[in-house]
Formats: sequence, C-alpha cells, structure tokens
Amino acid sequence: MGSTVELENNIMGEFKHLVIVKFKENVLMEEILKDMEKMVAEIDDIKSFEWGQDLESLEMLRQGFTHAFLMTFKNKEDYSVFLGHPKHQEFSATFSTVIEKIVLLDFPATLVKPPPKAPAEEPSAAQNDQK
Amino acid sequence: MGSTVELENNIMGEFKHLVIVKFKENVLMEEILKDMEKMVAEIDDIKSFEWGQDLESLEMLRQGFTHAFLMTFKNKEDYSVFLGHPKHQEFSATFSTVIEKIVLLDFPATLVKPPPKAPAEEPSAAQNDQK
Repeated sequence: MGSTVELENNIMGEFKHLVIVKFKENVLMEEILKDMEKMVAEIDDIKSFEWGQDLESLEMLRQGFTHAFLMTFKNKEDYSVFLGHPKHQEFSATFSTVIEKIVLLDFPATLVKPPPKAPAEEPSAAQNDQK
Repeated sequence: MGSTVELENNIMGEFKHLVIVKFKENVLMEEILKDMEKMVAEIDDIKSFEWGQDLESLEMLRQGFTHAFLMTFKNKEDYSVFLGHPKHQEFSATFSTVIEKIVLLDFPATLVKPPPKAPAEEPSAAQNDQK
C-alpha cells in the first residue's frame, strides 16, 4: 500500500468526490442530470459541482466510462454531512439503478498548479472569447 | 450511445483531462509526483493541476483505483497542444511503466454550481482553519 505523499510548495485544497460512470443503455441523461442538479442545489455543503462527458478518448483508454462528476467540499466534514444527507441518499437510490459501472474516489485534493487569478484588465477580450 | 446534454443555467467551463490510476506495487510515488510536477510546471498550456489519493472509500467502490489526477485547460486547443508536447510524451512513456490500470476521460467541463467568490473579509479566520 502506498503512503500519503506531501510535496513542497503544494497547497492542500478542498475535499473532492469524484465519480466516473458508464450508464446503462437507453437511459435518459436529461432526467439524471436534472435530478443531480436539483440535489446539488438543495445541499449547501456542496461547494461546487462540475461534470463532463467524454466524447473523444479512445475506448481503450476510457474503458467504457463516459461521464465524470466532480463535487468539491470545503473539507471532509462537509463531505460527511453530504453522505448522510437525506437528499443525497434519495438521489443515490435512483442513480444506482441507471449505472452499468462506476468508480468513486474521495480525497483531499492537492493543488499543485493553482489557476491564475483573473486579471482585472481586458474584461471585454475575455467576453469575446465566449460563444 | 448517449448524446451531449446541455441544461439551462449551466456554464461551460474549461477542458478537463482526468486520469485515475492504480499503481504497481513498490512504485516510488515521490518520484512519480515530482516528475509530474516538473512536467506541469514546464507546460504553460496546463492552466491548473490537482491530484488526490483516496485513503478511505470502500474497495468495492473504488475498484482498486487509488489516485486521481485532474488537469484543466483553457480550451480543447490547449489540451491538444499538451498532448503533442514533447515533455508530455516523455513523461507518459515513463508513467506507462508504473501503472497497473488506468482510466482517462477528457471532456469540456460543465460547471453547474460554481464555487462562491472568496470573500474579502475574514482572512485571519481562514488561515486559522489551515493546519
């Protein structure tokens, strides 16, 4: 078993709950995502939530998994509250019926390269980048 | 096959490169992480990088995977530059020798619940939370 490694210059980030999933066929993704968004909106302990669908990687590399869901919590205590939250348990019961396979990883995140602070200048240029 | 789902009120975020790994036994994690940090520091296209080691989840849920690595890019173009970058290819060649299993997912991230802006107040309280 590996031990926890802490390197110099790293910033301990928040606690992350990462879920990667292969859904069953003919699953209504719109419904699942709406339920998930509802749960996230209702549980204050979830600090941020983002997700994505891999449409490009080689099947060999993603091994059937198609979706990643990443929740961020301020700390492990908030994550524990989330785990026991009735809205989460209700969602999980439904979610477990639509997945073909799943991997969960829960960890304190180490932020090695923090994103740069948004510059105060050039706000119009940044807006033009968006479509 | 599922189609891309776009929901109301979502913010299209950056492009993410997510890697989850089970390492071979007796691998020197310190060395791997140092190599990874070096690569990340040398490639400007990587906007941010964080990683974590799951020390708690049930084995049934994490299925042998222990580490998650998450890189964020401004957009898919930057990610493509990273893929072809000599420093990345050099790192990947070494990395592939230490992993027992791996899943990669690459996707444009949809940010459903953006993190709250850091308040300007209470900086001392935040510092006290850190250990």
